[in-house]
Amino acid sequence: MRGVVMHAPGDVRVEQREDPRIVAPTDAVIRLSATCVCGSDLWPYRGIDAVGGPSPMGHEYAGIVEEVGSEVTSVRPGQFVVGSFFASDNTCEICRAGYQTSCIRRELMGPLGAQAERLRVPLADGTLVATPEVPGDDLIPSFLAASDVLGTGWFGAVAAQAGPGKTVAVVGDGAVGLLAVLAARQLGAERIIAMSRHEPRQKLALEFGATDIVTERGDDGVARIKELTGGLGAHSVVEAVGTQESMLQAIRATRPGGHVGYVGVAHGVRLDGTELFFSHVHLHGGPAPVRRYLPELIDLIWNRRIDPGKVFDLRLPLDQAADAYKAMDERRAVKALLRV
Amino acid sequence: MRGVVMHAPGDVRVEQREDPRIVAPTDAVIRLSATCVCGSDLWPYRGIDAVGGPSPMGHEYAGIVEEVGSEVTSVRPGQFVVGSFFASDNTCEICRAGYQTSCIRRELMGPLGAQAERLRVPLADGTLVATPEVPGDDLIPSFLAASDVLGTGWFGAVAAQAGPGKTVAVVGDGAVGLLAVLAARQLGAERIIAMSRHEPRQKLALEFGATDIVTERGDDGVARIKELTGGLGAHSVVEAVGTQESMLQAIRATRPGGHVGYVGVAHGVRLDGTELFFSHVHLHGGPAPVRRYLPELIDLIWNRRIDPGKVFDLRLPLDQAADAYKAMDERRAVKALLRV
Repeated sequence: MRGVVMHAPGDVRVEQREDPRIVAPTDAVIRLSATCVCGSDLWPYRGIDAVGGPSPMGHEYAGIVEEVGSEVTSVRPGQFVVGSFFASDNTCEICRAGYQTSCIRRELMGPLGAQAERLRVPLADGTLVATPEVPGDDLIPSFLAASDVLGTGWFGAVAAQAGPGKTVAVVGDGAVGLLAVLAARQLGAERIIAMSRHEPRQKLALEFGATDIVTERGDDGVARIKELTGGLGAHSVVEAVGTQESMLQAIRATRPGGHVGYVGVAHGVRLDGTELFFSHVHLHGGPAPVRRYLPELIDLIWNRRIDPGKVFDLRLPLDQAADAYKAMDERRAVKALLRV
Repeated sequence: MRGVVMHAPGDVRVEQREDPRIVAPTDAVIRLSATCVCGSDLWPYRGIDAVGGPSPMGHEYAGIVEEVGSEVTSVRPGQFVVGSFFASDNTCEICRAGYQTSCIRRELMGPLGAQAERLRVPLADGTLVATPEVPGDDLIPSFLAASDVLGTGWFGAVAAQAGPGKTVAVVGDGAVGLLAVLAARQLGAERIIAMSRHEPRQKLALEFGATDIVTERGDDGVARIKELTGGLGAHSVVEAVGTQESMLQAIRATRPGGHVGYVGVAHGVRLDGTELFFSHVHLHGGPAPVRRYLPELIDLIWNRRIDPGKVFDLRLPLDQAADAYKAMDERRAVKALLRV
């Protein structure tokens, strides 16, 4: 089959890869309906994360089950399924508490390479959630978004305790940040401040439910959020970047007693304990347990209550994956979908 | 009046200080029934925090109202009252959300010097809570404990979400840590693990409701907590020290999705964002909003449901304050009460 392989920073190729097959009796193999490039794929693309030799890429997936192992009972060939970037058993104590990305048997999907025609999914019963029926093509982008960016933005909004009566600020205008805006709206937030200086992304944020746009960053961004909130700061701030600047911006824009939900994969972040102590904020985040939210998100998409697929503002065939990476790296695209 | 003044690290004296008087119409002046030395007073005593010239000491207080300003309506002369180490209006939006130590009008009590015969309390209506009647002498230590260490331990346990079905670990066996054990018990925790290697403190922890004692520290302490919790870590960990080692111990002893409540005043703590991200813990803490809990704590003490005064294992007259500091510095005493 064809699949995306990163050879070095900036060097992404579509190559012949071995077809995946059932290895463990709990595996499934799916045929991808579409796949996509993640903001986190840009860390190695930009040389910030190391690339240790040719690496299959991609961890976002939705598609049709082709084959299941002998112990798989909850999904069957022919079903359309969505999973997350960590396979999880969904039965251990950590999964039952809603932290499937820290499942005691978790397996990272990235190395299996979801930017491809087919994918092996370990722990299929725990990992995959089927849609009521096979969806029409128009819903595929939204289901694919549920696999990571929607679920991650949603977790960020939940971790920040977005809800009725709350003012929510979102740091980061990538797909995750934009979908955190959508999540905050769904969760009933009163006011949603998107921090973005890119006009097309501002527009999408407003479509997803933002009530205010703040273009300032860093200390100026914090000052602007305080201005908008009677000097107190937001109740809830979602951090969807992962840098030192964005984390500090999020913490400092949150009022005492407020909540920071951070979902940007941390890169070089060091938090000063004294500042954190006196900030009085709640801090929660990490790899989003997307699996926790999949049944709800699938329902919302199936019933066309949300349209997260709008974040894909570039759609290319799998063979043009290199162009997709380049467009995202240069911020010409929010998120690129790859047709398989 | 007589009061404690710190001149330099290790140099604590009882001197004549000017009698406090009403400055603002929202002030009260109280006659202290007893006062005490706080673990946080040891930071300057040990030269870790700077001492900028002679400084009145003490921020824990309970006593009889002597005089009130013209705008004070909720307390009156003759009442026995308890307050916290930050004066707060208890009416601003931050106070109403339960974060009185971040009140927009807060005033730090420390510089006013509660280790003395009398004390001016700003924002008396918001800060002070009266007991139903003037209590007997036997209850004074417990009410004094409510002023800081009990309220701080309580906030730590609440921030760590101690409650029914939970395994709670407490890092730190000072007065705050020991009272976090008491709080976890009152909040209904199933299992309470006190981390202590000091026999008298272990004994007090068990009296307050600890079910297990762990003597190991650092990585060994973390390993022992994991052993006791099926490899997962505790649901809730209270950090009551404030050092880098104790913070890491707390974070690492917490299971994914669990809660760290940190109340040790941070000194030299730097948290690695990547470790925090993948730990999946909730982090909350800071200067405990003791005022939030005072009505409940006063009720528990008044009705003799709890006896937090037991943490005072050394009782000296105010004039011997220097001995009290020395005993706590040398860990010969958990906490020293000063009779006024």
